[in-house]
Amino acid sequence: MSNNSTKAADGKLLVLTPGMGAVATTFIAGVESIRKGLSKPIGSLTQMQTIRLGARSENRNPLIKDFLPLAELEDLTFGGWDVKPDNVYDACVHAKVLKPQDIEPIAEFLKTIEPMSAAFEQKYVKKLDGPNVKDFKTKKDLAEQLREDIRNRMKETGATRAVMVWCGSTEVYQSPSECHMSIEAFEKGLEENDEAISPSQLYAYAAIMEGVPYANGAPNLSADNPALTQLAEEKGVPIAGKDFKTGQTLMKTILAPGFKTRMLGIQGWFSTNILGNRDGEVLDDPESFKSKEVTKSGVLDTILQPETYKDLYADLYHKVRINYYPPRGDEKEGWDNIDIFGWMSYPMQIKVDFLCRDSILAAPIVLDLALFLDLAKREGKAGVQEWLSFYFKSPQVEDGHVQEHDIFIQHFRLKNTLRVMGGEQPVTHLSENYDSYK
Amino acid sequence: MSNNSTKAADGKLLVLTPGMGAVATTFIAGVESIRKGLSKPIGSLTQMQTIRLGARSENRNPLIKDFLPLAELEDLTFGGWDVKPDNVYDACVHAKVLKPQDIEPIAEFLKTIEPMSAAFEQKYVKKLDGPNVKDFKTKKDLAEQLREDIRNRMKETGATRAVMVWCGSTEVYQSPSECHMSIEAFEKGLEENDEAISPSQLYAYAAIMEGVPYANGAPNLSADNPALTQLAEEKGVPIAGKDFKTGQTLMKTILAPGFKTRMLGIQGWFSTNILGNRDGEVLDDPESFKSKEVTKSGVLDTILQPETYKDLYADLYHKVRINYYPPRGDEKEGWDNIDIFGWMSYPMQIKVDFLCRDSILAAPIVLDLALFLDLAKREGKAGVQEWLSFYFKSPQVEDGHVQEHDIFIQHFRLKNTLRVMGGEQPVTHLSENYDSYK
Amino acid sequence: MSNNSTKAADGKLLVLTPGMGAVATTFIAGVESIRKGLSKPIGSLTQMQTIRLGARSENRNPLIKDFLPLAELEDLTFGGWDVKPDNVYDACVHAKVLKPQDIEPIAEFLKTIEPMSAAFEQKYVKKLDGPNVKDFKTKKDLAEQLREDIRNRMKETGATRAVMVWCGSTEVYQSPSECHMSIEAFEKGLEENDEAISPSQLYAYAAIMEGVPYANGAPNLSADNPALTQLAEEKGVPIAGKDFKTGQTLMKTILAPGFKTRMLGIQGWFSTNILGNRDGEVLDDPESFKSKEVTKSGVLDTILQPETYKDLYADLYHKVRINYYPPRGDEKEGWDNIDIFGWMSYPMQIKVDFLCRDSILAAPIVLDLALFLDLAKREGKAGVQEWLSFYFKSPQVEDGHVQEHDIFIQHFRLKNTLRVMGGEQPVTHLSENYDSYK
Amino acid sequence: MSNNSTKAADGKLLVLTPGMGAVATTFIAGVESIRKGLSKPIGSLTQMQTIRLGARSENRNPLIKDFLPLAELEDLTFGGWDVKPDNVYDACVHAKVLKPQDIEPIAEFLKTIEPMSAAFEQKYVKKLDGPNVKDFKTKKDLAEQLREDIRNRMKETGATRAVMVWCGSTEVYQSPSECHMSIEAFEKGLEENDEAISPSQLYAYAAIMEGVPYANGAPNLSADNPALTQLAEEKGVPIAGKDFKTGQTLMKTILAPGFKTRMLGIQGWFSTNILGNRDGEVLDDPESFKSKEVTKSGVLDTILQPETYKDLYADLYHKVRINYYPPRGDEKEGWDNIDIFGWMSYPMQIKVDFLCRDSILAAPIVLDLALFLDLAKREGKAGVQEWLSFYFKSPQVEDGHVQEHDIFIQHFRLKNTLRVMGGEQPVTHLSENYDSYK
Repeated sequence: MSNNSTKAADGKLLVLTPGMGAVATTFIAGVESIRKGLSKPIGSLTQMQTIRLGARSENRNPLIKDFLPLAELEDLTFGGWDVKPDNVYDACVHAKVLKPQDIEPIAEFLKTIEPMSAAFEQKYVKKLDGPNVKDFKTKKDLAEQLREDIRNRMKETGATRAVMVWCGSTEVYQSPSECHMSIEAFEKGLEENDEAISPSQLYAYAAIMEGVPYANGAPNLSADNPALTQLAEEKGVPIAGKDFKTGQTLMKTILAPGFKTRMLGIQGWFSTNILGNRDGEVLDDPESFKSKEVTKSGVLDTILQPETYKDLYADLYHKVRINYYPPRGDEKEGWDNIDIFGWMSYPMQIKVDFLCRDSILAAPIVLDLALFLDLAKREGKAGVQEWLSFYFKSPQVEDGHVQEHDIFIQHFRLKNTLRVMGGEQPVTHLSENYDSYK
Repeated sequence: MSNNSTKAADGKLLVLTPGMGAVATTFIAGVESIRKGLSKPIGSLTQMQTIRLGARSENRNPLIKDFLPLAELEDLTFGGWDVKPDNVYDACVHAKVLKPQDIEPIAEFLKTIEPMSAAFEQKYVKKLDGPNVKDFKTKKDLAEQLREDIRNRMKETGATRAVMVWCGSTEVYQSPSECHMSIEAFEKGLEENDEAISPSQLYAYAAIMEGVPYANGAPNLSADNPALTQLAEEKGVPIAGKDFKTGQTLMKTILAPGFKTRMLGIQGWFSTNILGNRDGEVLDDPESFKSKEVTKSGVLDTILQPETYKDLYADLYHKVRINYYPPRGDEKEGWDNIDIFGWMSYPMQIKVDFLCRDSILAAPIVLDLALFLDLAKREGKAGVQEWLSFYFKSPQVEDGHVQEHDIFIQHFRLKNTLRVMGGEQPVTHLSENYDSYK
Repeated sequence: MSNNSTKAADGKLLVLTPGMGAVATTFIAGVESIRKGLSKPIGSLTQMQTIRLGARSENRNPLIKDFLPLAELEDLTFGGWDVKPDNVYDACVHAKVLKPQDIEPIAEFLKTIEPMSAAFEQKYVKKLDGPNVKDFKTKKDLAEQLREDIRNRMKETGATRAVMVWCGSTEVYQSPSECHMSIEAFEKGLEENDEAISPSQLYAYAAIMEGVPYANGAPNLSADNPALTQLAEEKGVPIAGKDFKTGQTLMKTILAPGFKTRMLGIQGWFSTNILGNRDGEVLDDPESFKSKEVTKSGVLDTILQPETYKDLYADLYHKVRINYYPPRGDEKEGWDNIDIFGWMSYPMQIKVDFLCRDSILAAPIVLDLALFLDLAKREGKAGVQEWLSFYFKSPQVEDGHVQEHDIFIQHFRLKNTLRVMGGEQPVTHLSENYDSYK
Repeated sequence: MSNNSTKAADGKLLVLTPGMGAVATTFIAGVESIRKGLSKPIGSLTQMQTIRLGARSENRNPLIKDFLPLAELEDLTFGGWDVKPDNVYDACVHAKVLKPQDIEPIAEFLKTIEPMSAAFEQKYVKKLDGPNVKDFKTKKDLAEQLREDIRNRMKETGATRAVMVWCGSTEVYQSPSECHMSIEAFEKGLEENDEAISPSQLYAYAAIMEGVPYANGAPNLSADNPALTQLAEEKGVPIAGKDFKTGQTLMKTILAPGFKTRMLGIQGWFSTNILGNRDGEVLDDPESFKSKEVTKSGVLDTILQPETYKDLYADLYHKVRINYYPPRGDEKEGWDNIDIFGWMSYPMQIKVDFLCRDSILAAPIVLDLALFLDLAKREGKAGVQEWLSFYFKSPQVEDGHVQEHDIFIQHFRLKNTLRVMGGEQPVTHLSENYDSYK
């Protein structure tokens, strides 16, 4: 059924995760658990979602994975880096995301995966530390070591292809500086140990140099700069980012479009989070928090178009707070108060309390990004993949483009992009015609 | 800019509201308040929303009301029926929706509108009663009196056109019976005082016979039956229904599509409401409640497609409760608990507390429906207007069609229908093309 | 340190529980788990609370269990009845209250306890059924069989004393009828199979006849009638009831006294519950629900004294709803909306969402009641023990007394009663004296 | 009925409020509104609460105000200081606490009260400023001016007695320094313009020197230091503080005692506030916030006794956040998440959302403090009045005493103190005796 031009997904696909904490181990445990028939790939579009092809009356609604030549779960292998030397089993137990009864049946498998030593400097993630780190003289060295790790791990696992998904902690906030303006400047920076080059940039650089697609699940700069974007285009490597869309921001991008369709005004939106995992601990450092705050801030503005809808959204007071609160563990909780107004400006309030699980929401995103980026590579796509905005809090876009945050529009684009990749027409939504969208 | 085929909106448009309680009076007060520059038409698409025409790069984003020949607010006149003889000012004060400081500046105007005597029998709305009701021998008589009321009120107000929007209470539950199967059977029923013909059906019948478009803001059967639908088609009259989408159902049709895009499972959805206005009092009668419950029940099933997504939604336990609670007055409150699950079936919970105002959410819907139905009439559209599903909890559809509840798809259809009416291309959403949808 | 007059707690104490579902098995598992050093007796006053003796400056604050001759956890043995024949291990697993990792270490012990066959008729608990029930001709027979069960189980376990705590389901609502007016009438009713005598009354009767203290954790009539109260007094047996104070009512009796101390008015209190365990299933039957509703209704009136504080509480609208909602399992959730008002009658709102665990809150109550009733028996107390009101939603009181619902006053009485039992002065709270209450 | 030794409340009582913003104007408007029969003194113990005297069977339950010789509302006059020159009517309208329809009927009266010029320096309240301030060379001068103001205002209003209640903004955090250690040091500081002496201390000093009782509704140091306490004792002036107990702390001191009575453990308590009035703006300054944070922090520790109940409360993680959020205005909202645990350490959660109104909760406290302090003065009480702890977030206590935060114990002490003042026995709570406490 697929597009002739796409190369089939032959052989094994290695999924590399810098950072092997709660998210990465939950992802790996889940894949193995699904492969053993112990659970279902809930939350994953590549595994569970259908896609309508042609007119509604044609009744063609295959699963996405039956429509496009995605890698099979059976063909996934894993590798990664962490500052702690624990194998995936130990790290998974330590993360306290999954219950013992869900970890034990796959313990054997998880124990076989050991993290490679990490490229790490504590000044970029103040609240984190560990012994499993690489020595280096220059950042260039470090990047070369990472490239060698990638090649070695591919050999060890017999993989024909690899993708990398950043699952590590949030680094301190950085805006692009001089060394990010061109490939040359960046490589010079590597040799001169430029302060502006953080570890996550080294991983991105190493991946792209090895022809490995790269996605960034945290809000760090990482590949979101001219140097690495340009490199990705030159090397024919698809990249995507930033910051997995989970929890409160996920809810925000569902709710805000809803209020807007109905032309309900919003006077204020107060969001507070409590979380107690390593992510929370790291964000307790104000500089790491700043990275996060920036990716969270633009969401409402882009969706609501306050410049067009002045009477409704121009005075919106938006405040986001993140609080480290150990009793909550990985079960992040987000509480939102939304002050809306309607007819004659009468106020109404909405409170949303989301008792979520960060890693549970993030894990299927890792899977989908790995499979879609691998597909994109085989499709010959290079550079920033805007159609994957659906998965990110702060979608990386091409130069000159604006971010799209409305999750329904993001989803729409994702599906139509898949249709076109598979040689089908995009859905056209003629409302005159009952056979329109579903 | 508009389509040549549409007749312009010349002269005055009479908006008729059977039921002149909280919703109707809030609607009328708001329109007058806007006309006097005292407030903005928050919540109304016809007044505030823009519509993108052509490619994004063309930058054509007029207001809907500048794009299509809708009636102007200045040209609206009002009329209605109620079992209580209070004029609109008194009814508005009594309803306690609006604050005195918002009513007083328009008191003069509101006092000029007196309700006509109502077609009413208490057995259809047990908890309601009042002295301002019509005498009758047969329901045929009653319908004729209503038709005369319509003609008289048009004369009094100098209107060239009229629309009718049911703003009355919820009647006891009825499914279509014999007399609803054809126009002939219905007219025979009118003469023989068939029990199955409730007052709201008489209003709908009278409107259609007079060529007046009809919308139903409550969950009653009203025009949603073969007899009246067929009549509407024959007489060239557009109709729409049922039950204004406000409060909890509005939230439900925003949230459920969001969970579905992300393939998050739902184990249970518990919704409870507390409300203390006349609507709540009426719903305290189990038979009236049943009408409401039926319109609220189908929403999730249609959106979530449990037959396609068995692992995610087949076992969803959905429970809706409505509670009369006088302390809350018109400020209905809805509390939802949603049990979702993600990766490896791990459970998460979402609680939504919506402190809403029923009449404030309903009033702009009355306005939009009046203007859009009037436009549709001039456009030559007849029978059920599915493209107005956006406004209803239980959209009336053509025979053989299924209801669409996803508010984003509903909104999409509404906008594309407007584009086509205005002689423009529907938006096509090619995701390959950055100039796609906004 | 204890009172000379109290007999010491020598030998084993048998705790008998009619109903061996979620509450009873959680109680038994917890006791064994504490005995093995695997957990702490959280929620239990007998095990954890201190009691101040004398003036504050004396600094005498022993644990209650060091102050009074309570039975030791080591000396508890268990027995019970259930319509299902599962042993306590199987029932505990089935109840899904405790996690496997908490059940397994004590599995051996739990498997040794098998339920005796129950005195049961389905007409009293419509939604419940099972095969492990006694045959009988007259209710008198049934009662005799239960008495024999008690004696046998004491022998089997080598107990010197026993107490019985009803942990079964809620029976259909009954108010006291003719046969409850005297011991004679009751015993005649037993012989004549009077409809008004439900199984829980048989258990209470059997216990009292055997000199075994009885507490009732459900809202059924059970021992709360003149016949059984009189019998308890005659036989020198302490009894207590009704309906363990957990969840929403617990919160209500904490919050309402708080508002009252500050003279804040209450306009309305809406309480809704969702629960999915056997208790919820049983309460889905309207007649069983009525029993529950009655015990929940009086709480606010008694605390708030609306006849004294007319301006504050006379118009309070109180509504309680219980909803069976299977996704929640044993983790009952209660949502309260409280409409209070203050200075110049300005309204404020409080929403309380309590994600509680019914059996976890009930289990330590079973323990405390067992130990306190056993103590009371040795102290020579007979009949209704009002000082145990602290533990009940609807405290059983002596004839002519009114119920006390304020949890702080209840707690106060409990502690002062213990002080007197132990030969100490009650605390007197002279506010002039800094050495007063803590 | 009252104690012979207390002087009657003859003549007018002047209530002086430094700070005439939301709290003070709501208080004054309310008193006048009550005097005109337009509202009831909701929230005020002095006006609405009854007090039981003797045994319950004696049935003596007079209103507090009928039992003790409190000043009558008719005899209250008002005065105050503010940096803004608006009269009370304008300030009341500006504060947006009360609705126009509640202000207008008493507009005449409110317009008659103009603020005296304030003793103010912006460095103590960074976010506040205004033109109505006193010139001065030394703080001694300033204090003298305030004393003169007091004497003048008494003359103007014909008052025989006065009390002062600080209703101003929170000053930057200060702990007692050298100049607060003795009266002499303090007076030297006044002359030398010691930085450590803030305006609220000048008001307290002036009041005490004039024999005027003083209460502090904000968390500032003010009279809570050895110098001013000693002065109050010497001059025979009763004082009380600090920080009116409203909103979230009020709820905390209701809930925490409830959990403790039942020996439920608490793992974490997260409290966040959103508020948008002047108070919120002032607290946006970190130094002012620190004052507030300190008064909010100790509450749980004192109530829960973590040193005694290690297994339950020693690991409690308590976090309090205050957020300036303008859309909320004076209607402060507090959201609490409380992580409790019960039997076998199983976790439960409680969420409390309090939509409160700060000034509405504070106003009756101002009234009660004014009347009780005036009574205390006539009773011959001097220095810190611990029995008024009931009204404060951070009760000022005598040297060597610990704060009591449990609202039920506080209430208890208040009532028994009143009983003794009125020549009655304190309630003794013998639980053996049914005639005990109500």
